Amino acid sequence: MTPTITAFARSPDRGRGLARDTRVRWALEEAGQPYEVRLVSFEQMKGPAHLALHPFGQIPTYEEGELALFETGSIVLHIAQRHAGLLPDDANARARAITWMFAAVNTMEPPILERETARLLERDKAWTEERMPGIEDRIRNRLGQLSRRLGDAEWLDGEFSAGDLMMVAVLMRFKASSEMLEEFPNVFAYVARGQARPAYKRAFEAQLAVFTGMAPAG
Amino acid sequence: MTPTITAFARSPDRGRGLARDTRVRWALEEAGQPYEVRLVSFEQMKGPAHLALHPFGQIPTYEEGELALFETGSIVLHIAQRHAGLLPDDANARARAITWMFAAVNTMEPPILERETARLLERDKAWTEERMPGIEDRIRNRLGQLSRRLGDAEWLDGEFSAGDLMMVAVLMRFKASSEMLEEFPNVFAYVARGQARPAYKRAFEAQLAVFTGMAPAG
Repeated sequence: MTPTITAFARSPDRGRGLARDTRVRWALEEAGQPYEVRLVSFEQMKGPAHLALHPFGQIPTYEEGELALFETGSIVLHIAQRHAGLLPDDANARARAITWMFAAVNTMEPPILERETARLLERDKAWTEERMPGIEDRIRNRLGQLSRRLGDAEWLDGEFSAGDLMMVAVLMRFKASSEMLEEFPNVFAYVARGQARPAYKRAFEAQLAVFTGMAPAG
Repeated sequence: MTPTITAFARSPDRGRGLARDTRVRWALEEAGQPYEVRLVSFEQMKGPAHLALHPFGQIPTYEEGELALFETGSIVLHIAQRHAGLLPDDANARARAITWMFAAVNTMEPPILERETARLLERDKAWTEERMPGIEDRIRNRLGQLSRRLGDAEWLDGEFSAGDLMMVAVLMRFKASSEMLEEFPNVFAYVARGQARPAYKRAFEAQLAVFTGMAPAG
């Protein structure tokens, strides 16, 4: 059964691939799975039909027959557990790949989200400029730790996995608004490797087509 | 094989159960699994042996034979997937429970972490008092959404699951430093139900014993 995901009818990033549906599209492309997309407006996202699918009123959601999921990490893991291409076969290696998924959203992303909150919600506040170096130091600390672990490896733990997908997606969003990632050349190159994957490119083109109004070539 | 987890030799919360090893202890207690604990000092956490286990230099870690994991969410999921008691049998219900695990760490926890950062790292800054209402509004928004979804249910989706464990643990940490949770009586009662579980109580006592220096009764 072809799953249906939701995405912004008008993405605030103007098609730069930073909205979280890109992560789910990318996972589906890596797994070679077709999918349908239902676009939702900001108004619809706060309405009862969408809130029944997503209690926090966000995108993406994932519907497949009687199953309805929200939370990008959970959707990507669901896809990865059911199709080849996103998790290794060995049980221990699978557990380690899932560890990197959680590290992406619970260790790497929080200081990056804090910076986004400062830039978007508190941009007109007197304190924001003065706060920013402290926030960036916290991000830099995490990036340094990630850089040391990554070393000269291609991916975080063996073959490309859902852990890399989530980590690259988190870092990509940061890279789009800061030059700081260039301070960590191996992490910068790691993100570029992720974005160079054919599955990522297909996902990017598909989300861009929503913004430009061009349906992707079927 | 009995797993070994790491915990703070001297927890900054003075045994209130707020350090993240409590989440892993709780999961192991729900699953009825024995475990060993290795205590690490702050100095050891930044040393090469611990960084080899945990690239971000935190606790807890989880070692079981040749498997080494970090990230609380990943460790709890690993335990939940291998033992009864933390995930439903039905595949769709399992996927939904895992969704709540990710919702706990990636939707509910970030604004709570932002408040902690303000209170701990920026407490002496002129702007912190003025910023706090905005941060608390973001937390209140999420709590309101969670409250509406929970309604008068006992747990988030059917029986108690690893999703509830993670959500209660995130909210418990917030409750320890704010009275705001009382504005949402059903969520407040939900957290209390989690903390009343015998497995949670055993986990709490075990981490408290580290602080008081009393070994828990074996």
